[in-house]
Amino acid sequence: MTMKRALLTLLTFGCVLAFGGLATAQAADPLPSWNDGKAKQSIIEFVAKVTKPGAPGFVPPAERIATFDNDGTLWAEQPMYFQLLFALDRVKALAPQHPEWKDKEPFSSLLKGDVKDALAGGEQSILEIGMATHAGMTTEEFEKIVKDWIATAKHPTTKRPYTEMIYQPMLEVLAYLRANGFKTFIVSGGGIEFMRPWVERVYGIPSEQVIGSSIKTRFEMRDGKPVLVRLPELNFIDDKEGKPIGINLHIGRRPIAAFGNSDGDLQMLQWTTAGQGSRFALIVHHTDAAREWAYDRNSSIGRLDKALDEAQAKGWTVVDMKQDWKVIYPPAKK
Amino acid sequence: MTMKRALLTLLTFGCVLAFGGLATAQAADPLPSWNDGKAKQSIIEFVAKVTKPGAPGFVPPAERIATFDNDGTLWAEQPMYFQLLFALDRVKALAPQHPEWKDKEPFSSLLKGDVKDALAGGEQSILEIGMATHAGMTTEEFEKIVKDWIATAKHPTTKRPYTEMIYQPMLEVLAYLRANGFKTFIVSGGGIEFMRPWVERVYGIPSEQVIGSSIKTRFEMRDGKPVLVRLPELNFIDDKEGKPIGINLHIGRRPIAAFGNSDGDLQMLQWTTAGQGSRFALIVHHTDAAREWAYDRNSSIGRLDKALDEAQAKGWTVVDMKQDWKVIYPPAKK
Repeated sequence: MTMKRALLTLLTFGCVLAFGGLATAQAADPLPSWNDGKAKQSIIEFVAKVTKPGAPGFVPPAERIATFDNDGTLWAEQPMYFQLLFALDRVKALAPQHPEWKDKEPFSSLLKGDVKDALAGGEQSILEIGMATHAGMTTEEFEKIVKDWIATAKHPTTKRPYTEMIYQPMLEVLAYLRANGFKTFIVSGGGIEFMRPWVERVYGIPSEQVIGSSIKTRFEMRDGKPVLVRLPELNFIDDKEGKPIGINLHIGRRPIAAFGNSDGDLQMLQWTTAGQGSRFALIVHHTDAAREWAYDRNSSIGRLDKALDEAQAKGWTVVDMKQDWKVIYPPAKK
Repeated sequence: MTMKRALLTLLTFGCVLAFGGLATAQAADPLPSWNDGKAKQSIIEFVAKVTKPGAPGFVPPAERIATFDNDGTLWAEQPMYFQLLFALDRVKALAPQHPEWKDKEPFSSLLKGDVKDALAGGEQSILEIGMATHAGMTTEEFEKIVKDWIATAKHPTTKRPYTEMIYQPMLEVLAYLRANGFKTFIVSGGGIEFMRPWVERVYGIPSEQVIGSSIKTRFEMRDGKPVLVRLPELNFIDDKEGKPIGINLHIGRRPIAAFGNSDGDLQMLQWTTAGQGSRFALIVHHTDAAREWAYDRNSSIGRLDKALDEAQAKGWTVVDMKQDWKVIYPPAKK
């Protein structure tokens, strides 16, 4: 062993010792699926700042409200929103009860397998499919329909259950925030009653912390028992300007942290960061065509354009999915 | 000391010892402002039943949802709903900015002090007063208006602050339920943004657990900062059939316990008790003309008629305020 070699060995050994001590002294990494980098660091620094009593950025636990978009932020949204895939499956299941659909768009195209033709009518077609598949039953019946579907349906390309196409790194953020006294909410353009049957099990978010789009319901007595019947009439669209409105209606206070991935989340991020004191905004940028999908400014699903510009201008955290995430989905369940 | 006397002394001493032991072994009375009786007993038995692991009536903590009406259930509502008294005060405060009100009903009667004349137009008059006083400002401005009013306004007959006209026995029920793993919600016909500025401090109920009537809001940028502007347009009436609808929209699961005082709460109580497993429904019956007010079937405020019949038919708990409550309000603050 040369002198130089001996010195190196000593230094290395010292480093190992120092590192070992550090690892023991620190808590386990709260975000193990995140690569080290600016995004991960910004989350950890924000949480440290708001939870340190007496520090200028401290936020009392009751005010630690964090809101999360769902489609594209907590689970995938390609090749189209999963709730739309649910609706298409429901059209097929309900077709025997609706012989008139054979000659009626958008249903006839759908039943022939021409999804593109069926959706050519844009929002109006989607609305008709939505109402035909989401209204007319009681809330309890709809809950069962969603539960049955989500338990068995598989994604068209990955062949995985939809509830396994959730983002492991975001599950860690949810758990990390809750461990630090945050209440975590979903604020999604998706249907509130489409999410509630499974989000508690999958994300640990209770149904009373889910905000979404909704249709109207009617209270009615059936055989002396009260039911709520789902009506084919929009109640609320929880997207874009609707997100701060929904947050205000359901939560009644401004979040201090918000997580989104598209222009539909822009107003939620603006609303969140415009409050006083410590604030945090994060955008998941879908950059990983190999492991997930890569899309942003020109995508019809989850378009990220204005919000990406604003994130850059205002210094919001932008997650580069390809760079920042070690894994995308949790390990497949057996 | 005669033999008899000695025996009595011994027995008494033994009883005192036994009692002392019992008091130590038992937890402190969770409902000290309630007289012993069927109402108090029914609450304690229900809580014991749902919290005993393995017992047939057990309910997991996540499902322990309890909903409370506000006006007449958690605080008083006579001679008229306190929010209406707030609106009348606001009309006076805003009058200098509205010279046209001098010749316009219902405002002109109000400004002359003729409340009865002003309200003679019924719901339409109340709606006009409501919109004139509750809309047109941002949500933050309205919050400040409510906070300022509630901090200083006094009830016309008791001369107490409104936040001291809350029911001490119900505060104990709220705390008792929360200590047993319940989440407590307000489900009120009152305005959701009229309640939120003070209910957390007064009842310990956070703003995200408040459901109420609402007007629409609009998201808007002012000098580059986002605001929500309150619009003179009804969004939702959280009364009667609206209560189960509001519960379903905000909570997304059925309460296991519900507390009300009027026919406006009937559907909430029906909805709550129609679920499976342990269920509890309670009605506060205003029977105490000396300490509070006595009213039920013929009252225009807080009418209790159909719900009283249904409570008797279904065995719901009916609180006789005069008999069951040792005190009505908490001690006055100095």
